Amino acid sequence: MAQLRIALAQVNPTVGDLDGNADLIVDWTRIAADSGAHLVAFPEMALTGYPVEDLALRPSFVEASRRALTAVARRLAEAGMGDVPVVVGHLDRRDGGRRPLNAAAWLHGGDVLIVSAKHHLPNYGVFDEYRIFERADMLPVVRLHGVDIATVICEDLWQDGGPVSVTRAAGAGLLLAVNASPYERDKDDTRLDLCARRAREAGCTLAYVNMVGGQDELVFDGDSLIVGADGAPIARAPQFLDHLLVTDLDLPEATAAEEPASVEAPGGATFTIERRTISAAPLPGHAPEPPTVAEPLDDLAEIYAALVVGTRDYVRKNGFRSVVLGLSGGIDSALVATIAADAVGPENVHAVLLPSRYSSEGSVSDAEELVKRQGLHSRIVPIARMVEAFEAELELHGLAAENLQARIRANVWMGLSNEHGHLVLTGGNKSELATGYSTLYGDSAGGFAPIKDVFKTTVWDLARWRNTAVTADLPFLHPFAEEPVPEAIIVKEPSAELRPGQRDRDSLPEYSVLDPVLADYVERDMGRDALTGAGHDPELVDRIVRLVDLAEYKRRQYPPGPKITPKNFGRDRRLPITNRWRERGDVAP
Amino acid sequence: MAQLRIALAQVNPTVGDLDGNADLIVDWTRIAADSGAHLVAFPEMALTGYPVEDLALRPSFVEASRRALTAVARRLAEAGMGDVPVVVGHLDRRDGGRRPLNAAAWLHGGDVLIVSAKHHLPNYGVFDEYRIFERADMLPVVRLHGVDIATVICEDLWQDGGPVSVTRAAGAGLLLAVNASPYERDKDDTRLDLCARRAREAGCTLAYVNMVGGQDELVFDGDSLIVGADGAPIARAPQFLDHLLVTDLDLPEATAAEEPASVEAPGGATFTIERRTISAAPLPGHAPEPPTVAEPLDDLAEIYAALVVGTRDYVRKNGFRSVVLGLSGGIDSALVATIAADAVGPENVHAVLLPSRYSSEGSVSDAEELVKRQGLHSRIVPIARMVEAFEAELELHGLAAENLQARIRANVWMGLSNEHGHLVLTGGNKSELATGYSTLYGDSAGGFAPIKDVFKTTVWDLARWRNTAVTADLPFLHPFAEEPVPEAIIVKEPSAELRPGQRDRDSLPEYSVLDPVLADYVERDMGRDALTGAGHDPELVDRIVRLVDLAEYKRRQYPPGPKITPKNFGRDRRLPITNRWRERGDVAP
Repeated sequence: MAQLRIALAQVNPTVGDLDGNADLIVDWTRIAADSGAHLVAFPEMALTGYPVEDLALRPSFVEASRRALTAVARRLAEAGMGDVPVVVGHLDRRDGGRRPLNAAAWLHGGDVLIVSAKHHLPNYGVFDEYRIFERADMLPVVRLHGVDIATVICEDLWQDGGPVSVTRAAGAGLLLAVNASPYERDKDDTRLDLCARRAREAGCTLAYVNMVGGQDELVFDGDSLIVGADGAPIARAPQFLDHLLVTDLDLPEATAAEEPASVEAPGGATFTIERRTISAAPLPGHAPEPPTVAEPLDDLAEIYAALVVGTRDYVRKNGFRSVVLGLSGGIDSALVATIAADAVGPENVHAVLLPSRYSSEGSVSDAEELVKRQGLHSRIVPIARMVEAFEAELELHGLAAENLQARIRANVWMGLSNEHGHLVLTGGNKSELATGYSTLYGDSAGGFAPIKDVFKTTVWDLARWRNTAVTADLPFLHPFAEEPVPEAIIVKEPSAELRPGQRDRDSLPEYSVLDPVLADYVERDMGRDALTGAGHDPELVDRIVRLVDLAEYKRRQYPPGPKITPKNFGRDRRLPITNRWRERGDVAP
Repeated sequence: MAQLRIALAQVNPTVGDLDGNADLIVDWTRIAADSGAHLVAFPEMALTGYPVEDLALRPSFVEASRRALTAVARRLAEAGMGDVPVVVGHLDRRDGGRRPLNAAAWLHGGDVLIVSAKHHLPNYGVFDEYRIFERADMLPVVRLHGVDIATVICEDLWQDGGPVSVTRAAGAGLLLAVNASPYERDKDDTRLDLCARRAREAGCTLAYVNMVGGQDELVFDGDSLIVGADGAPIARAPQFLDHLLVTDLDLPEATAAEEPASVEAPGGATFTIERRTISAAPLPGHAPEPPTVAEPLDDLAEIYAALVVGTRDYVRKNGFRSVVLGLSGGIDSALVATIAADAVGPENVHAVLLPSRYSSEGSVSDAEELVKRQGLHSRIVPIARMVEAFEAELELHGLAAENLQARIRANVWMGLSNEHGHLVLTGGNKSELATGYSTLYGDSAGGFAPIKDVFKTTVWDLARWRNTAVTADLPFLHPFAEEPVPEAIIVKEPSAELRPGQRDRDSLPEYSVLDPVLADYVERDMGRDALTGAGHDPELVDRIVRLVDLAEYKRRQYPPGPKITPKNFGRDRRLPITNRWRERGDVAP
């Protein structure tokens, strides 16, 4: 056996920020080298950020990524770290290729030692890689201190028949997978099981390094891990934190025997195996350090962490330092304010209270209590006179009159955003957005919608969880002195307060019955028959399917506005704007 | 030789409207049968509409399409048209397939005779078919009245190595291609050349039927055509109109000899050739009718037609009958109003004049003159008091104060939309949107942006063209009694009128120098070096690249708002929201 200390750098790059990401690689390699690591691995596309989407198709961006890669190799050597090999994901191309490559490079001695690229290009859900990249059919195996190390990229681990399937034939002693695998609810368990299965398939230890941080509508949870050849967990990084997972491994020494240069994978693709040698002899033995094995977060903590990190990085990566939001006294804006305070600090959160003639007295006082507990900035901007100025010129009734108030509020926070440079956060939850219970250019207006993928019942759960966590020592929470969300806000009856005595349940089913149907219809894509087959009340299904279809229809007529997504987190499913097809045939437009 | 009268049905289906599209197929088959056609062909996905995007991934929709197909076959037979074979594009699946098929069926005698599916799945530009569909490797050849007819679907014509490449080996006498090929500027010439080349490759006559009409952000121009085996044009349908192109063809009689059942295509795929026979004997001879050969529209007429059809179908297919828009007295809203009047009739266009304290006197009188000439509905809603009501509560300066006015105007037209059920049209042109010269939730608010893909210089060209066309007899134009756009609106200096004496050229380069750079940067994706290499002034390139990058950056921070596209027409390029990479490194966020 041969010993190796490897460092998995669970880092948070920014799409397009080649200079900043290069600094990240150099800085973390320094820390890894200082901890005596023999190999450092960064996530998929760590140099460019991920997902780069169609930006990858711009030739000048591909060239910029290639130049940045060779510059990083040189910088590492100039900084005295040339002898520590670094594996890093980047954007590359092959000569004469029509599309670029989702690539990974070994850097060593100031040079690029070998470049490989992804074989399986995911093109479902949030992924569009087949659109962007060319596939590759090569497995690189690098001998380092007597251990043969093979590298693969993300989806190649998830699909059968790719480079992982030829890793055993290649005789690798360590399989290193670099990833940008977005967070979904409960995905951590799936991922561990997958790694265990692939380690057994490859017949060797598997090291999995994942990205962390928010990028647009995606959140990466990290959760980098190492499993043995038998699938047993060896080490695990914490979720949602930048982390260097340094682990001492005992790995089989590479044999001198000839291994094949070309292997046919199950499914038909033929893989070339390309070998490089950095150092053939094992290192002298050293006393191993005990591995880090972080505990996964529980369900609500995990969701809350994803929301905080997603919000923090959207604000920060878009060049903002502060946010502005409307605070109504209801639960949604209260949770958004709390997430914002955790994400960017209460001193950077500007709450606006916008009472109208229909606002209850409790609305203002509850909002003020939250402001006080969290230490936010706040101001009160009554909207009655603005509403009157519009009413003097226009005769609006019913929904049109309700929407007017919501839009006037949006004008106020957009004005404050333009004047002071705050990013606007908007408060719609997934239940409201799915059923169309919000106003276009009104309460749905804003740059980022932290809870757009959270159903209303989970909004309450998260608010309660956050209050209980006030004494917890979790790195993604601000240390408030008392429970940040006043109980009065959690227990009050939900209302939009756009007309006298309005209550959500006048327009919608109770959230406790609505949300499970929405989860099955919106997230699991079940049709009407499948929904009733799953035990939902047929009349309720009819009503909710109708609400969702109409809301989707209306939302798409006016393309703007935050969109709901089919996954717990992720980008909008690409449905047509004009779509007359319905689960039920009798829904009029 | 054998005679055959074929009918290409250039129709306008609606995505998801299975019942309506089925009616379309039955109705047009009736007209074709009455004209003595022996075969009727409908476009790609005519039964479901196109593009269906990720809707295709919902199993209940796939099943609905399959049921609709067999129902149409039955209806045709019950209506006495069972003996006229109908080729129609639809959504299908293979047993056990992971994804659905972009399919085409031959219907005959009340049944589905044979189903084939697309081989090449385009996944670039506006297309995402690899994401949605499975590919197929079969070429159907149906013998009808002694002629062997092969069918292929759209992209299979555009790429080498697909079913077209084995059509000659299959011995087909006619190659029928069903298409949903969106309009781009100058695409009609490309398409004719392609058909000629493929006809020569296949060694037989080629009939190309395309969709017509607007669907979301795409417009299909029709332009269905037939070329001989030598590539020479035989018949051509008019652009942008529903049309049945009935043509008598002299085609080689199928031989009785055995042809291969399986052929390897260049590039490696192996195609199965499946044969069916409807009738082996040629028909008795008949006197052929002279073919229709429509003249293509000239450049400006073609663009204007695309805008009218796109607007008309967006309004209609989304269930609206009327539109509302702000009319400023400037050229952009004037052109949008004119397009709207042509698209849905002046009696369905509601113009709102929203003068502020900064509006010039000419603004209102020029807008009123346009209203009078076109016979639109109009009302004046002064916004000064609304602005004052906001200013009493908020201290806004500079751009924030300008944006407030634009957003108040949007509130007014959204209120009228909600109250009266009009769709809001918004007036931004591509030059403005590309450079960020518009207000989020303000002038950019609306359901459809007719001229978002038209540069400012082309806006003027189109207005002048529309005035000269006042005497032309073109089916997509409303018969106005006089020139619809007052000359004063065309010649005035462009201004947003959001502060005293404001002019576009205070913020932007002259449009005559701006637009060519935008075309190269935004539509042709040229990098900074390529732009200066193409002869653009380096300082100007720096300034414009900076404007566009910042505008894109800001637009993506707030996902809503109409987006510019890299093609003349089409859907937004999918770029990341957060994107720090720039052509120039020194652009601050």
